[in-house]
Amino acid sequence: MSILVVGSVAYDTVETPLGRAERVLGGSASYFAVAASFFGPVSLVGVVGRDFGEAQLAAFRGRPIDLEGLERMDGKTFHWQGRYSLDLNSRETICTDLNVFEFFQPKIPASYRGSEVVFLGNIDPVLQRRVLEQVERPRVVACDTMNFWIHGKAAELRETLRKVQILLVNDQEARELSGEWNLVKAARAIRALGPRTLVVKKGEHGVLMFGEEGSFAAPALPLDVVVDPTGAGDTFAGGFLGYLASAGQEGDAALRRAVVMGSTMASFSVEAFSLDRLLTLTRPEIDARYREFESLTRFESV
Amino acid sequence: MSILVVGSVAYDTVETPLGRAERVLGGSASYFAVAASFFGPVSLVGVVGRDFGEAQLAAFRGRPIDLEGLERMDGKTFHWQGRYSLDLNSRETICTDLNVFEFFQPKIPASYRGSEVVFLGNIDPVLQRRVLEQVERPRVVACDTMNFWIHGKAAELRETLRKVQILLVNDQEARELSGEWNLVKAARAIRALGPRTLVVKKGEHGVLMFGEEGSFAAPALPLDVVVDPTGAGDTFAGGFLGYLASAGQEGDAALRRAVVMGSTMASFSVEAFSLDRLLTLTRPEIDARYREFESLTRFESV
Repeated sequence: MSILVVGSVAYDTVETPLGRAERVLGGSASYFAVAASFFGPVSLVGVVGRDFGEAQLAAFRGRPIDLEGLERMDGKTFHWQGRYSLDLNSRETICTDLNVFEFFQPKIPASYRGSEVVFLGNIDPVLQRRVLEQVERPRVVACDTMNFWIHGKAAELRETLRKVQILLVNDQEARELSGEWNLVKAARAIRALGPRTLVVKKGEHGVLMFGEEGSFAAPALPLDVVVDPTGAGDTFAGGFLGYLASAGQEGDAALRRAVVMGSTMASFSVEAFSLDRLLTLTRPEIDARYREFESLTRFESV
Repeated sequence: MSILVVGSVAYDTVETPLGRAERVLGGSASYFAVAASFFGPVSLVGVVGRDFGEAQLAAFRGRPIDLEGLERMDGKTFHWQGRYSLDLNSRETICTDLNVFEFFQPKIPASYRGSEVVFLGNIDPVLQRRVLEQVERPRVVACDTMNFWIHGKAAELRETLRKVQILLVNDQEARELSGEWNLVKAARAIRALGPRTLVVKKGEHGVLMFGEEGSFAAPALPLDVVVDPTGAGDTFAGGFLGYLASAGQEGDAALRRAVVMGSTMASFSVEAFSLDRLLTLTRPEIDARYREFESLTRFESV
């Protein structure tokens, strides 16, 4: 079952304690699409400028990623530059050049309109809704957002959330969206807005999922080297929805496996800059790491 | 198998966003002993002043807690006063009156010397070692410490750690003790100092255990009301070691169950001020909540 993803395709310039990467491939749709493509076909919707060439597209080639919806516009590609703190838990944005992304109006190719799983990456909630208006009858709509929209387009975001089954945000975003510090209360408030499943990403502290059949907690894999956390959340979303689409189920058990698969993919993503580690990844490596999560979390009854 | 615990018995005055408790029972040995007493006998070593009366001792009565080692000294009982931040993730100490605790010299009664499991609460590492010199041949020695000793008595702490099998500290303490930001590297460095098992307590983010057979991650139970986090770490330790002593095993599987039992006990402790929730707790409630941790964390293979 094909997944439609709409989001950013970008150049990133990133500094972390372990190094620097200059104008490398980034963007939510890029991380998502490559991660999800390990599980099945992905249809990408985004925009790039004239400076985005075949070398960058190479990351998507040879994978089941349809690029018909990747628009090429006059101008430059979105560029984000940031620097991480020593402990990698916070980052400072040095510059955000939206470039062609500022004028992005998602156009869904006819061949994408039957997509049954849709991931609305972190873009203006008005655009997220326009995407939904162009798809026929998606079975699962998942969505990301950020503080900028939570505060700047609160009413529009709420309207979008009414059409969303799964919301994926980080803990701070969950708190700001709900106005509740406590995550259990935040989840209750957010689920009342529409999404029947809330996935809260806590970075190195793992993931909490709040759903119709209770809560699920998965740790992040303890890693001794983290090179670059950029894109970990979008990679998580790609593994999560990619697995879910391939499983063809949306029950509690499938959602739990999807969380662990998302965590598995994210654990690879942070091992290198940009999509570098994802691009060398193999399915046996993915399966072996999923099993590491099993041994990391297993315990017996008393 | 009896557990010997040495640590503080105190009065706490605590302010949290949900209220205030004035001069209530606190201290590491108090929380530990009551939590561990659900699993088997506990021998307590500590000191209180003349102001510590039968009303306070009532918390320990009617439980398998031996108080022969609770010394009564002329002067006042240790008093700690603190205030928690809105999100409960940080706290400010308003005053610490050590009182009789300043002169504490742990004396181990003859009847305690055969204890097979020893918990060295957070006291001067020199005193921790003196306790070990007075017990015969403990099978398991576990230990807590804090930044004050990590920086103020670094050499003495290292000497104590050589005699410890299990160290329980929070993430910040693990980082400061090892000089490593990354917890995997921190664990490697700390385990080289002596403890073959390191348990890192991360508060609302759960627990990471690093041992001879790999790592184990357990979440904290997502709670919608947290009244007072004071003593959660000592309650964790009491549940952890109490379960371990009762199981009579120290292998990886038993250690994992012990982590979950510690997390179970801590999840109750934070529901009320002081030891109030622990004092009304029943074994069926404990077992039911352990099963909540099972359903919170279970997922299937792919």
